[in-house]
Amino acid sequence: MIEPKILKGFKDSLPDEEIIRKKFIRKIEDSLLSIGYLPIDTPALEYFEILSGKSGEESEKQIFSFEDAGGRKVGLRFDLTVPLARFVALHLNELAFPFKRFHIAKVWRGEKPQKGRYREFYQADFDIIGSDTIGSDIEILNTVINLMESLNISNYKIFINDRKLLSEIFKRLNLQEYEISIMRIFDKIKKITKEELKGELIKLNLNESTIDKLFNILKLYDNHKEFFQFIKKDFNIENTRLEEIMEIFDSSGKISNIKIDLSITRGLDYYTGVVFETYIDDAINFGSVCSGGRYENLVSLFSKNVYSGIGGSIGLDRLIAILEEKGKLEKNSFNNILIINFSNKYLPLYFDLQKKIIENNIICEIFPDSDKIAKQFKYADKKGIRFTLIIGEDEIKNKKIKLKDLKDGTEHIFEDIEGIIEYVKNIKV
Amino acid sequence: MIEPKILKGFKDSLPDEEIIRKKFIRKIEDSLLSIGYLPIDTPALEYFEILSGKSGEESEKQIFSFEDAGGRKVGLRFDLTVPLARFVALHLNELAFPFKRFHIAKVWRGEKPQKGRYREFYQADFDIIGSDTIGSDIEILNTVINLMESLNISNYKIFINDRKLLSEIFKRLNLQEYEISIMRIFDKIKKITKEELKGELIKLNLNESTIDKLFNILKLYDNHKEFFQFIKKDFNIENTRLEEIMEIFDSSGKISNIKIDLSITRGLDYYTGVVFETYIDDAINFGSVCSGGRYENLVSLFSKNVYSGIGGSIGLDRLIAILEEKGKLEKNSFNNILIINFSNKYLPLYFDLQKKIIENNIICEIFPDSDKIAKQFKYADKKGIRFTLIIGEDEIKNKKIKLKDLKDGTEHIFEDIEGIIEYVKNIKV
Repeated sequence: MIEPKILKGFKDSLPDEEIIRKKFIRKIEDSLLSIGYLPIDTPALEYFEILSGKSGEESEKQIFSFEDAGGRKVGLRFDLTVPLARFVALHLNELAFPFKRFHIAKVWRGEKPQKGRYREFYQADFDIIGSDTIGSDIEILNTVINLMESLNISNYKIFINDRKLLSEIFKRLNLQEYEISIMRIFDKIKKITKEELKGELIKLNLNESTIDKLFNILKLYDNHKEFFQFIKKDFNIENTRLEEIMEIFDSSGKISNIKIDLSITRGLDYYTGVVFETYIDDAINFGSVCSGGRYENLVSLFSKNVYSGIGGSIGLDRLIAILEEKGKLEKNSFNNILIINFSNKYLPLYFDLQKKIIENNIICEIFPDSDKIAKQFKYADKKGIRFTLIIGEDEIKNKKIKLKDLKDGTEHIFEDIEGIIEYVKNIKV
Repeated sequence: MIEPKILKGFKDSLPDEEIIRKKFIRKIEDSLLSIGYLPIDTPALEYFEILSGKSGEESEKQIFSFEDAGGRKVGLRFDLTVPLARFVALHLNELAFPFKRFHIAKVWRGEKPQKGRYREFYQADFDIIGSDTIGSDIEILNTVINLMESLNISNYKIFINDRKLLSEIFKRLNLQEYEISIMRIFDKIKKITKEELKGELIKLNLNESTIDKLFNILKLYDNHKEFFQFIKKDFNIENTRLEEIMEIFDSSGKISNIKIDLSITRGLDYYTGVVFETYIDDAINFGSVCSGGRYENLVSLFSKNVYSGIGGSIGLDRLIAILEEKGKLEKNSFNNILIINFSNKYLPLYFDLQKKIIENNIICEIFPDSDKIAKQFKYADKKGIRFTLIIGEDEIKNKKIKLKDLKDGTEHIFEDIEGIIEYVKNIKV
């Protein structure tokens, strides 16, 4: 006997979890399809040199890589962005640009497993490739808004920044040489205290006055107009891309879900413009549930052409975990029926009934063994089935069908299956 | 620049293909959910010793395997059956038995790539674990019937056999020692000629009269009753499991899609009882689109308990290829609208219109760049978008909305968006 164990950092998905995930993915897919994104898929395995092309050394270490039987160095994809860049470069002539695609699939990272973090997890990405305009910045943010609406989430904020604006500010503060280091520190801001933040900035040998100024730009403004007055006054910067974006969302009445936050930089090196993270109001500690930004040089890794892109990634499992904790997750309950199997000779009859029931969008199964009735009821109970249909010799002789509601134990007698369907349809789950 | 290449035997899925696959998968999922199967998922990577547990040497060679950073020998799953056995053994107490699960996911095999065969492909499996009764044999066959109906396929045949019956026949023919070899030869029957079949049997040193008898049992009977008379007369075998199964499908009027075929043995060693393959009538050469059978000893690889199982696997990509060739694949056409972007300042208005349109289940996107109109029309054309919505300065001034049908080039003027929605909804795609 082989011990049925599972690799460290990996997990099975049992039916309850898997049903929720599938429903969630369908909603996300439908939302993205409705506004013109198209699905693609790429292989789980790619040449290692493709995957490691733009990733830093740290990411590279996390790639599950090996030599295949043909002696090629290959790896499991660690995100869906690098495969997208490779995909676009390979299929340039087959795609309509700007290319709006989504991709919901598993990725693998050999990182140290932590609570809630696994070595195999889903990414749900949407991107627009081949447009560097404000219009596509806005489109991506509007996509996040659409997604949240379709998931019935209203209490969220999208925090946005523009790395170019931040660079400009650093230039005015003569901090160009610290730009990357400071951005990395900013990136941790939601996980560390103010004191820790200050400590990290002091480590860079910045003086007190500079640190004060940096704290100033990290302030969140309730009104975006105040923010733009502030950067005009303090840094003489105006007419920014961020301002145009905010003005359009203001006019469209969607501004309340979008906040400017200069601490948002995203860890990854490849972002070059607008970046954003999305937090659920009363679940900030869970982290961002939808993040992304603009990148200019990703496709050019694999192509002579330059295709600016902007995209976002939904934290599928994180979002499910938040909704679960807040009691806002739709329960896996549906009106379902188990037809008790009294004898295989009745199967033709049971088949007929089952067909009529499922045609009415009620889940219906026939117990596969005609053995002990008690065992069949135990099965219904363990599986969370609401109703059993009882049609044995007596019922057939008397032309009756008995429906048992396992929730309260009541039994109901019907003349025909249509009556049962009508009854079950009107029961609230 | 890194060459954007893809590994041999792997392929990308472009939007047209991916939309079809996703639709197909949803139909299969809905069909299986409706009759009580539950979804699960398992990791792509497993301990190599788990994967290689029951596979023959040939399968073992096909596993993409490697040593991970922690020194564990791991592999990519090559099917969904072995992971299911491991899953059941690990979660015995969390599951309701008989456990009916489905699993639609990718598997990987390092086999020689051939036309239409890839090293990464989908499997779509459904199984019942923990029941060894005729009832569950019937349930699996009925599941295939349900699946075919939900995919709108009526011209198919399920060919079934029972390995136990075949063993019994071989015993009567004193061919026990040749059992496995003959089953392997039978398994090839749909791909080789009668002469080749005979050649293979002669190679086993069987005499002419035995070969005649084997050819006799391979005969397909139009009526299952004739078949059972034949095995009673020639082999003195009666009251078989197969007979009870066929009688029940006969009574339920579903017999026309099921044929007894003793050549069906399935290649894999682990099958022990009923086995089946499903062929589309006018596409036999594509191979079976849904195969499976009963296995007794799979879970016991990982558990002291014995759980008999029976299951089937849908050849997803093969089925899509057949429907495509026969022109029976639903086209990826839908009524969709591109809102031409005249200026970012109109985006708030475009957002409003888009919202109303998608609420009516019409796909609607706004072009992300407010640049050349010709470029926007070219995009609509390349992407196969049916309608464009034209709302520029003139239209806003005159309170009109212009809809252009790209199929015939006609333009239609509307007073409001409701009129457009009504119009588009009534256009047949």
